[in-house]
Amino acid sequence: MSAINIALLGMGTVGTGVVKILANNAHNIEQKVGAPVVIKKILVRNPGKVRNAPTDAKIVTDIDEILNDPDIKIVAEVMGGEMPSKDYMLAALKAGKHVVTANKDVVAKYGRELFEAAEANHTDFLFEASVGGGIPIIRPLKQCLAANQITEIMGIVNGTTNYMLTKMTNEKMDYADVLAEAQAKGYAESDPTADVGGFDAARKIAILASIAFGARITLDDVNVEGITNIAIEDIEYARELGFNIKLLAIAKQDDCGINVRVHPAFLPTSHPLASVNDVFNAIFVKGDAVGETMFYGRGAGELPTASAVTADIIDVARDIRHNVSSRILCTCFDHKHIYPVSKTESPYYIRLLVEDKPGVLAAIAGAFGAQQVSLHSVIQKRKVERSTELVLITYRVSDENIRLAMNTLLGMSVVSKVGNVIRVEAEQIS
Amino acid sequence: MSAINIALLGMGTVGTGVVKILANNAHNIEQKVGAPVVIKKILVRNPGKVRNAPTDAKIVTDIDEILNDPDIKIVAEVMGGEMPSKDYMLAALKAGKHVVTANKDVVAKYGRELFEAAEANHTDFLFEASVGGGIPIIRPLKQCLAANQITEIMGIVNGTTNYMLTKMTNEKMDYADVLAEAQAKGYAESDPTADVGGFDAARKIAILASIAFGARITLDDVNVEGITNIAIEDIEYARELGFNIKLLAIAKQDDCGINVRVHPAFLPTSHPLASVNDVFNAIFVKGDAVGETMFYGRGAGELPTASAVTADIIDVARDIRHNVSSRILCTCFDHKHIYPVSKTESPYYIRLLVEDKPGVLAAIAGAFGAQQVSLHSVIQKRKVERSTELVLITYRVSDENIRLAMNTLLGMSVVSKVGNVIRVEAEQIS
Repeated sequence: MSAINIALLGMGTVGTGVVKILANNAHNIEQKVGAPVVIKKILVRNPGKVRNAPTDAKIVTDIDEILNDPDIKIVAEVMGGEMPSKDYMLAALKAGKHVVTANKDVVAKYGRELFEAAEANHTDFLFEASVGGGIPIIRPLKQCLAANQITEIMGIVNGTTNYMLTKMTNEKMDYADVLAEAQAKGYAESDPTADVGGFDAARKIAILASIAFGARITLDDVNVEGITNIAIEDIEYARELGFNIKLLAIAKQDDCGINVRVHPAFLPTSHPLASVNDVFNAIFVKGDAVGETMFYGRGAGELPTASAVTADIIDVARDIRHNVSSRILCTCFDHKHIYPVSKTESPYYIRLLVEDKPGVLAAIAGAFGAQQVSLHSVIQKRKVERSTELVLITYRVSDENIRLAMNTLLGMSVVSKVGNVIRVEAEQIS
Repeated sequence: MSAINIALLGMGTVGTGVVKILANNAHNIEQKVGAPVVIKKILVRNPGKVRNAPTDAKIVTDIDEILNDPDIKIVAEVMGGEMPSKDYMLAALKAGKHVVTANKDVVAKYGRELFEAAEANHTDFLFEASVGGGIPIIRPLKQCLAANQITEIMGIVNGTTNYMLTKMTNEKMDYADVLAEAQAKGYAESDPTADVGGFDAARKIAILASIAFGARITLDDVNVEGITNIAIEDIEYARELGFNIKLLAIAKQDDCGINVRVHPAFLPTSHPLASVNDVFNAIFVKGDAVGETMFYGRGAGELPTASAVTADIIDVARDIRHNVSSRILCTCFDHKHIYPVSKTESPYYIRLLVEDKPGVLAAIAGAFGAQQVSLHSVIQKRKVERSTELVLITYRVSDENIRLAMNTLLGMSVVSKVGNVIRVEAEQIS
């Protein structure tokens, strides 16, 4: 059987990983596909910088050299960024080439357009690497759990912030120091906003929610809150109360509709996600038939991400061998109501600095009570000059009501500062 | 698009689950497939006992009514047991029908024959439910991790024994009491040998190893040891030393070849598998590209298992819609050397009852030393009449040498009893 030729768009970290895997595991991959898979061309911006390219591959700088090459059947996009990646992928699909990508930005924003192009041109469009790096999650959701109504996805899908929160928890380092260390190690970028602001996680949960719920969810539908306000005090109170703080990407579906959000949360230490540490990712999925499942592994990195890209290449190559395409494309068949985060409910952790005098607790409890917020527990902690730190855990309450209560509190003279307000997830407080 | 008709073989727990899922999620499944999936016939032994069958389905007792029905495209085998399940599946494949099954016994023993029949007759043969119930693991190994050389699989794949070990650990119940309770709850059968003896886990790891290593591994290749000798003392010493005892199904591939085994093991509490409790299953997979991944969920039960069976049905139905079959069948392309368990190496935990007198420890250490077994730590524990319980953790040593050393010890007059010898896995003792 003649070789199946592919082109790589980009030769950075992930591209280099794909080259290594296709070389190291060539024999196995040929057996699985029934034909050798060969990199024929690699598109780069600066040919002078390319290292480790396979000797048989032609380095090109013009996308047309790939688009117009009828021998190239599969285009693997590993450049990252929205543009020109999206345009290149669209052009490749329109040229009848199968496309696989690791690009969460493009899939989250332009998924529909790319799926439509794939369908119209009878090609495959796969993106297993766009969420969770090497962790199998897209294909499991689209195929293995296809018989389920998915009710919930809860994931740790950003390695940078999970590394930072783990460090803060285990080594009692504060946020600024941990961020500086993560930047020094290359885990965080010099502008860390996409990670610490929760936007990377938001794109990933938009992709997962779209597949899980069969309705297109975009970044605009995701309520996003990052970890920049998490203080070492919050981490320590969490530990004391039996929780770990994690940046969670959450998508839930119930009778009211769909809600999708990214925010830090208190998670009981007994929850499977609570012990997912360092740069590891994990995605917890609940379905009406399967119950609770979890997928765990490395969410980023050269070889893990390339593992997923290459798996997609192998899958497309199998389709080519069997003369089939577009077997599984867009599964967003429905429009579903997305309800705002203000209507979501959970218990909350609240840390306040209050005046240290009689009657203060009664006043605060009264302010909460006026907004139907019931307090499950109250801990009076360390004194800070003439104030006292007060830690509260509420019963289940709507986000709307907690915000109203916090506004009232901020207007009270006895409240000197609101330290933090953090959701409690996966805990039955009753 | 006209309906895709299927037949169920069996209407027990899993069959009932498939009926429920196809009814509850009919709309979603029709969207995904592009056609309704309808149960046309159900084969049972005793029609009088059938409850909850869909009204449109015909209950039959003769397999020929299914084999000779050209409208039936997919046969889902959910009867269990080796025979007649295997004969029915083979006949269905030969009749040109796609087959999906939850049957680990048949897949482990007759996999090759069934794959060959599927290939010859251009049909699909899928078995996601045969390992790990609803946990996606077969398809992830065959597709999502296809770019990897898998070096290790380590799984908790038997819910009954995991429930028992969890109870022993958390509630300090002893083996006999826990078994009785598991039987009363229906988690263990009246003859519990397949579970507690490790044979159920052995069949599952044979299936996983065959896929992971691309070489057929049969039950005969698996070294099997169950949990019947695990005493509450072992559980308690494990906890004290920072381990949990789990029944592990292990398959490793290295330069020497492949080794596959099932046995109880000490697992560091920090290992992701160590906190997989109760009836939950989890499978830890290491690949050269992806690194460490883990798949977690319910390994048994009506709906979880039916979730996997129905996912296979949906996948085959998609193939029928796209006019393709046999896309991914047997992936055992190679023959690989399987080396005996005696050549495997690990640290070991050893619990001995010895005479309580001077010089005993020196004599025992000498006996170990004579077989190149070095001791990492020795704990002298409680006195039992005039004896002392001695707990040893060795450095990494071959199974062969530990057995020779234990034989010598058994011949020593100062050793009154060998309490237990248990492998330590996933721990770097150096």
